[in-house]
Amino acid sequence: MRNRKSSPPPKQQRRRPSSGGTGRDPGTARPPKAPGTGASPPPERTGGGLWLHGTHAVLAALGNPRRRCHRLLITGEARARLHGELARLEAARPGLPIEEAADRSIIEALLPPGAVHQGLALSVDPLPPVDWEGLVERLPAGRQLVVILDQVSDPHNVGAILRSAACFGAALVLNTERQAAGETGTLAKAASGALEHVPYQQVVNLARSLDRLKAMGFWVLGLAGEAPTRLDAGSLPDGLALCLGAEGPGLRRLTRERCDLLLTLPAHGPIRDLNVSNAAAVALYELLGRGR
Amino acid sequence: MRNRKSSPPPKQQRRRPSSGGTGRDPGTARPPKAPGTGASPPPERTGGGLWLHGTHAVLAALGNPRRRCHRLLITGEARARLHGELARLEAARPGLPIEEAADRSIIEALLPPGAVHQGLALSVDPLPPVDWEGLVERLPAGRQLVVILDQVSDPHNVGAILRSAACFGAALVLNTERQAAGETGTLAKAASGALEHVPYQQVVNLARSLDRLKAMGFWVLGLAGEAPTRLDAGSLPDGLALCLGAEGPGLRRLTRERCDLLLTLPAHGPIRDLNVSNAAAVALYELLGRGR
Repeated sequence: MRNRKSSPPPKQQRRRPSSGGTGRDPGTARPPKAPGTGASPPPERTGGGLWLHGTHAVLAALGNPRRRCHRLLITGEARARLHGELARLEAARPGLPIEEAADRSIIEALLPPGAVHQGLALSVDPLPPVDWEGLVERLPAGRQLVVILDQVSDPHNVGAILRSAACFGAALVLNTERQAAGETGTLAKAASGALEHVPYQQVVNLARSLDRLKAMGFWVLGLAGEAPTRLDAGSLPDGLALCLGAEGPGLRRLTRERCDLLLTLPAHGPIRDLNVSNAAAVALYELLGRGR
Repeated sequence: MRNRKSSPPPKQQRRRPSSGGTGRDPGTARPPKAPGTGASPPPERTGGGLWLHGTHAVLAALGNPRRRCHRLLITGEARARLHGELARLEAARPGLPIEEAADRSIIEALLPPGAVHQGLALSVDPLPPVDWEGLVERLPAGRQLVVILDQVSDPHNVGAILRSAACFGAALVLNTERQAAGETGTLAKAASGALEHVPYQQVVNLARSLDRLKAMGFWVLGLAGEAPTRLDAGSLPDGLALCLGAEGPGLRRLTRERCDLLLTLPAHGPIRDLNVSNAAAVALYELLGRGR
């Protein structure tokens, strides 16, 4: 480990020298197919490859202008329960077919076994890819934190991490393209609406994405059980990339080598590590929530 | 809300007047059927009603003298991978039948669909009930924190909360008897071994358990999204009961009325609340982990 990893950088804004470029690295993400923000909702059509389910996930998707929605299935009970909120969202989706499901089994047949749908299922397109480097360059001061997931594959964990990112105000969550959770109904349900608020992007080459972030002045942190520095050791500057590895293998070598600082949670009991979404929540609370 | 809820109690040990009694309240828990700690392992027998699965859950159960184990099923691959650790644990379980599963499907047939077993399944008895009040009275200073779950029913969440409790050093997790996750293989897997370290007790009457804790001098905290006081508002004394409600309904009225202080997480983003296990991890980090 390099020397500067052993003590956190000082509190003031500490920026690496900029590489000067604002161009995207074509190797690290699929090219965007749609504008990143501010697009008016496209015309709805019947079809779509992804079913979202659950109250928060469906309502947030209906309220997201970047989300193409094709068809809403809803039980009478859910419709009565969500009356006011649904009416407002329907007004913003004029062409959307809405069908009342006479029975919950009609919805269940569309979803994975055991999915908790709360009487709603929405057929959508996956979100368009994000120009994440452009997004990072436009981040306002004080909110410059990006979460980096190194092959985190459990959709419940990735969804919960998106939710924590949305709660504490992280800007973006990157994950690998391979061995990682894609955008699914299970992930969206666990994110409880956060998938529509925090951009989630899978990238082909995570090490290159980290190099890009470093070139943009970000400090790269990694959570690792054996790290000598505690998460609460001191203040860190704005402009952070927080890396979390999959449970078991942890951070891969190429990721770990790019970390400027490895941090550990202060564990006092018989178990030394947390579930990855719990570790992410604790780190985001320390870095973005606490004392602000 | 009572007045004293609006500002946290001072840092020094602040104890309510003791009720003087050390007796158990028979209404709040099932009577213990076995000694709480220190019993030598009972003779193993074939049978048992509960299958634990997954490396950490199974190894921790084999290492827990309070856990009656009946039969271990293991694949050749898992046996080779865990050779040294298993040999040590087998020596402490002299009569335990160990069967090599020729195929993973033999283990899968015993478990819920999709269970991640990593080549191990262990037939066990549920853990004997805990004399939780006696345990609380014997807690050393500095480690007096009890987690109270108010009808938290998802076994993944309860398991992850046990893991965080074990990591940061909470003494005990109580949950309700009804509408709550019981001791299952899914819960034990999510706890990643922590179920064998942190006592988990379901109680019939959670309000009476809180009254008992208050009589023993504990301050009762509740996490609630609308609370006026932030989790990071100030130091809290030793001797805390941290209450978390189920997602959606949150804390029930009878639980909330017993809280001395309601706390909220400092949320800065578009989503205002976390998954309950993430909220628990953040609160345990703040109360037990950080700065210690």
